[in-house]
Amino acid sequence: MARIVQKFGGTSVADIDRIKHVAQKVKTCLEAGNQVAVVVSAMAGSTNQLVEWAKQIDPMHDAREYDTVVSTGEQITVGLLAIALQTIGVDARSWLGWQIPLLTDDVHSAARIEDIKADQIIDRLEQGQVAVIAGFQGIAPDGRISTLGRGGSDTSAVALAAAIKADRCDIYTDVEGVYTTDPRIMPKARKLDSITFEEMLEMASAGAKVLQTRSVAMAMRHHVKLQVLSSFTDTPGTLVQNEEKQMEKQKVSGIAYSAEEAKVTVVGLPDKPGIAAKIFSALAETHINVDMIVQSASPDSQKTDITFSLARSELEKAVTALTRLKTELAFVALVHDDNIAKISVIGTAMRTQSGIAKLMFEVLSEKKINMQVISTSEIKISVLIQADYTELAVRSLHDAFELDKID
Amino acid sequence: MARIVQKFGGTSVADIDRIKHVAQKVKTCLEAGNQVAVVVSAMAGSTNQLVEWAKQIDPMHDAREYDTVVSTGEQITVGLLAIALQTIGVDARSWLGWQIPLLTDDVHSAARIEDIKADQIIDRLEQGQVAVIAGFQGIAPDGRISTLGRGGSDTSAVALAAAIKADRCDIYTDVEGVYTTDPRIMPKARKLDSITFEEMLEMASAGAKVLQTRSVAMAMRHHVKLQVLSSFTDTPGTLVQNEEKQMEKQKVSGIAYSAEEAKVTVVGLPDKPGIAAKIFSALAETHINVDMIVQSASPDSQKTDITFSLARSELEKAVTALTRLKTELAFVALVHDDNIAKISVIGTAMRTQSGIAKLMFEVLSEKKINMQVISTSEIKISVLIQADYTELAVRSLHDAFELDKID
Repeated sequence: MARIVQKFGGTSVADIDRIKHVAQKVKTCLEAGNQVAVVVSAMAGSTNQLVEWAKQIDPMHDAREYDTVVSTGEQITVGLLAIALQTIGVDARSWLGWQIPLLTDDVHSAARIEDIKADQIIDRLEQGQVAVIAGFQGIAPDGRISTLGRGGSDTSAVALAAAIKADRCDIYTDVEGVYTTDPRIMPKARKLDSITFEEMLEMASAGAKVLQTRSVAMAMRHHVKLQVLSSFTDTPGTLVQNEEKQMEKQKVSGIAYSAEEAKVTVVGLPDKPGIAAKIFSALAETHINVDMIVQSASPDSQKTDITFSLARSELEKAVTALTRLKTELAFVALVHDDNIAKISVIGTAMRTQSGIAKLMFEVLSEKKINMQVISTSEIKISVLIQADYTELAVRSLHDAFELDKID
Repeated sequence: MARIVQKFGGTSVADIDRIKHVAQKVKTCLEAGNQVAVVVSAMAGSTNQLVEWAKQIDPMHDAREYDTVVSTGEQITVGLLAIALQTIGVDARSWLGWQIPLLTDDVHSAARIEDIKADQIIDRLEQGQVAVIAGFQGIAPDGRISTLGRGGSDTSAVALAAAIKADRCDIYTDVEGVYTTDPRIMPKARKLDSITFEEMLEMASAGAKVLQTRSVAMAMRHHVKLQVLSSFTDTPGTLVQNEEKQMEKQKVSGIAYSAEEAKVTVVGLPDKPGIAAKIFSALAETHINVDMIVQSASPDSQKTDITFSLARSELEKAVTALTRLKTELAFVALVHDDNIAKISVIGTAMRTQSGIAKLMFEVLSEKKINMQVISTSEIKISVLIQADYTELAVRSLHDAFELDKID
């Protein structure tokens, strides 16, 4: 007997028929002799409607009121799923964030989980009752509803799995698992049977949208074994687990991409200490997340250039913030490009195998794709390229690393 | 300075523009120097959708889960209205039933309010903050969300007004107040400036849908002065208050009707004690509300007939329940008619003035409308007639009692 957390996203509970289908999946898991806690998102589309209403009234809405409004999406699905379970003879009850309670900090709309008082849930699980838990929400120290930010239901599920010491956390989604790359642009993409936490983390932060970065980091920290699988089929998914448990040893596990990047170069900065700090603290104060950073000083001048990448949606804010600092920073020009993609090759095998960067650069160069910025970590190599070449780059790299074949 | 509770129903908050309009009304009331608590319903139509979903999954759904689902409608409007108020410079915060807390009994989906711990609300009101309170919901002793049943927001508003010792409770609706009768069938119907609690109670239970019976009874018990007015115009509404405060002294205050009644006659019952008790306890166990009851025994026989009226929608259930008891009750036949209307003439002046029943019966007889059952209270006379004559009866009585004129 195992204790399992099952998490179903918005598309899996998008209408009444799908909610009934989820109830069957939960029942099957329970009847296999497991204890089951289910975490659900709002019905697909419903949260968008709520967000839209709040924005229509005031784009700068009070985050506490916003949380009160948007948390209703999950409140509806937990009630409906509990009813659907009871109807097919499964003892079940819904739990809202404040009822558990799932305690968060006071950063409404982007709250962090501080603690989950899981005693009641564990008691009920041991009595055979299914706990149907509203994802994405908790209660803040002010006694009001908090939300974890968009996509926070994955994080809720992993945090709950850690709190109740679950044997596994199954993340049901609309794809069959984690793929070597996006099957929509590379038909030969192959579903991975397993992947390490570190690789998954790099995949998520490099643009693979199957799991939230935050939830993977939390699973890694708390040693929660994750499985990503489809709620529409019965095929096994992809296990995300510690490296030592990996059976499969690929050179490279996957190619991730993000086609919605932008690049900014601050040209002709005086080459002296503290300049980079000023730039990035100004951006941080404006809540802009900077991704890759490269500084290049020509040895024969007092000037230096700093290039960084960021989400395309934040480009305008970044340019405005930096333009305001032009005199203070004494730079010559600000060059930006909003048609940038980031391509990443990911694999823990990079630690021990050489030649991966070499192959990557050769493939791109052969296809005449210019690499504008390169950045590497222990298990990942990322490059920025013109967004027009995204598909070509992904397909060529997938072929070159033979990701459609199992080693 | 007064302390006012304003209650806005579903049509008043049906979309974002109307929510903004409500915010303006609240601001006006606040700027007139009042302390303001607002109770809101769900956006019109949204609760129906939620109820429909729950029914689609299981018509016999768990009431606790149902409450979790349907209470989200009000949760959305309080958040949105609080944002709308803040946007126009009004300090406001939303309050859910469990946050206040508004304590109910454990009869989920039809809960009764047991207590409102209003200290926090009063503190905030005194600091000038508007309290935006979710109607229709509370928290049950099991720590889960409870709802008061459909239309319960009026009751929430009155209970809150009593708890915070409000000077007045303004019920905003889509009509301009309480009318002498339904203006849709009698164009000469006149809006009343005021009406007594007792009259309002009889009007509500006799079919005038402007206020919930339950909320009027509660207002009367707690001496909460009510005002019914339109959220779409700025004209004064109708005050509902104690009789001694009434300035206007009409013979009759209004004609109410309910065209969706049915009548059942249990024919040929043995005329012995305990028979009526058996019938009505059987109906009560099936949760059927019986309205008017008449028993008629002919002195020369051992048999008696019992006739009662009830909502048309409950006729089938009642017939089934009674048919099951045929042997035990030893009656001869069950006769029923589902095309019945109840017409009521209401006015506290009946206590002191005679001739009202006489005039009512004369008018109906003149129009050849047969009265099937008659029932009277201290301030009301109700008759059952064939539903086809509803409009004719209402118009004739309205004219005969000269309700279009002020005495």
